[in-house]
Amino acid sequence: MKLKQELEKYKNIIDKELDKILPNYNTPQKKIFEAMRYSIFAGGKRLRPILVLKTCELVGGKYSDAINFALSIEMIHTYSLIHDDLPAMDNDDYRRGKLTNHKVFGEGIAVLAGDGLLNLAFETMINDIINDIDKSERKIKALKVIAESAGVFGMIGGQVVDIISEGRNIDENTLLYIHEKKTSALIEASILSGAIIGGASSDELERLSTYARAIGIGYQIRDDILDRIGDSEKLGKRVGSDEENNKVTYLSFYEIEDAIRETERLCKSAIMALDSFDKEKVKFFEELANYLVYREN
Amino acid sequence: MKLKQELEKYKNIIDKELDKILPNYNTPQKKIFEAMRYSIFAGGKRLRPILVLKTCELVGGKYSDAINFALSIEMIHTYSLIHDDLPAMDNDDYRRGKLTNHKVFGEGIAVLAGDGLLNLAFETMINDIINDIDKSERKIKALKVIAESAGVFGMIGGQVVDIISEGRNIDENTLLYIHEKKTSALIEASILSGAIIGGASSDELERLSTYARAIGIGYQIRDDILDRIGDSEKLGKRVGSDEENNKVTYLSFYEIEDAIRETERLCKSAIMALDSFDKEKVKFFEELANYLVYREN
Repeated sequence: MKLKQELEKYKNIIDKELDKILPNYNTPQKKIFEAMRYSIFAGGKRLRPILVLKTCELVGGKYSDAINFALSIEMIHTYSLIHDDLPAMDNDDYRRGKLTNHKVFGEGIAVLAGDGLLNLAFETMINDIINDIDKSERKIKALKVIAESAGVFGMIGGQVVDIISEGRNIDENTLLYIHEKKTSALIEASILSGAIIGGASSDELERLSTYARAIGIGYQIRDDILDRIGDSEKLGKRVGSDEENNKVTYLSFYEIEDAIRETERLCKSAIMALDSFDKEKVKFFEELANYLVYREN
Repeated sequence: MKLKQELEKYKNIIDKELDKILPNYNTPQKKIFEAMRYSIFAGGKRLRPILVLKTCELVGGKYSDAINFALSIEMIHTYSLIHDDLPAMDNDDYRRGKLTNHKVFGEGIAVLAGDGLLNLAFETMINDIINDIDKSERKIKALKVIAESAGVFGMIGGQVVDIISEGRNIDENTLLYIHEKKTSALIEASILSGAIIGGASSDELERLSTYARAIGIGYQIRDDILDRIGDSEKLGKRVGSDEENNKVTYLSFYEIEDAIRETERLCKSAIMALDSFDKEKVKFFEELANYLVYREN
């Protein structure tokens, strides 16, 4: 499949650059470098940084202009996973089949590794702005979009509502709030920041924003569907855990057929939003929308 | 005393602005706003943000140009205290006589409140840069200095070495590393960022850097001295706890008389470094150096 090859190609670029940019010195604080690298290289699909590079190219930019922002978003995503997995939050021992950060390095180092990745993400973007004066105006705008999406009105806000809602009977609006803030916000910021660096017009940004929201919500609903009717072998995990844990999901409010119809609708509207872009370049985004919304794992 | 009035005056400005800038909405994530505000208004002396404003003025700038950077540094300092106090780190139930953040809001929210403050600090500085195009070049440089001082090669690095050294017999170099990174780095960044925003020359920055390092180390040594020979009533806490806890301090390597002589030497060299600045404006920094190094609490 063409999409898979394309994802693989960009993932390789990102992995190589992450290896270069993550500190790995034999200095007194080397323990934190180990912990940061452990979670960064724990098998992530690199969806967010790939979106940064691809949207930069979509609007006519060079992916290399956006690479440092792509790496930074992956660091922000990884820091959020390390902190989410902590005993005081989701208390997960494993992620993608590997021990979580605090299980390997202890809770103290895990908190600091998360802090370190968030801080390093900002350092990386700030240095990139200083070293690329020509595009500094665009890049500061991209930095603002990313910072806001990661903060208390974005991802952190979503995580707060998620943990205070645990075990409570939340309504549909609260569920949508958690989904939108905890996951979609950073995906949208990935798409928009790459496009801003690539020189997108405000019309293009609006279209990409529509695309981002549609695939973000579609992705979440698909997650809920797979937990109900997915194939546990393909998924690599048990199905039915949401129901067992009384977790409020999209399927708490809608029948499964309606949920599937909604993902189809979201996928179509995502693709429609991009109909004015270059036909060849936009194919990746169409295939990606289809993949996210119809995936089996 | 003139110094006390001056500190009080700037503290009031900072407290008022912090109240304005910290979110306080009745939105789903309001719990985190409460937690962030709780620790921000838990009785800090505002030393770091005051230094930002005063060095900006020292080199001829207006303090209002640096106010958002001052607030951001206080947010970074506060986030580091919240995370340091966590059970997985220093495990402190009280700070300045008040319950620590995780004792009031739980560990999960405390981790997120710290994350939220760090992220909001960057958002605040980025917005300030976007809204002040004229000084954007200076402000991006100040942002870089602050980001580096807070990160894995600065404050976080120091905290890592501190927690992995606990209960171990560290050497003098390791102790100095912890002091320099964990505390002095952000104090130095406060002094330098204000001066950069105010338009300091590179000679002025070098002098201020010398001042910052001297008072940073002097402050730490004074802490160790007070724990040995201070007046517990004036200090508001027991003395002798370092020795009871077998904590390695400056006094593990030096006699108390030598330590006192060293703080006197550091104070003098801090003041000497600033001898080329405006005589009237520099008085504050002289009095401050004396206060930090000879303080009784």
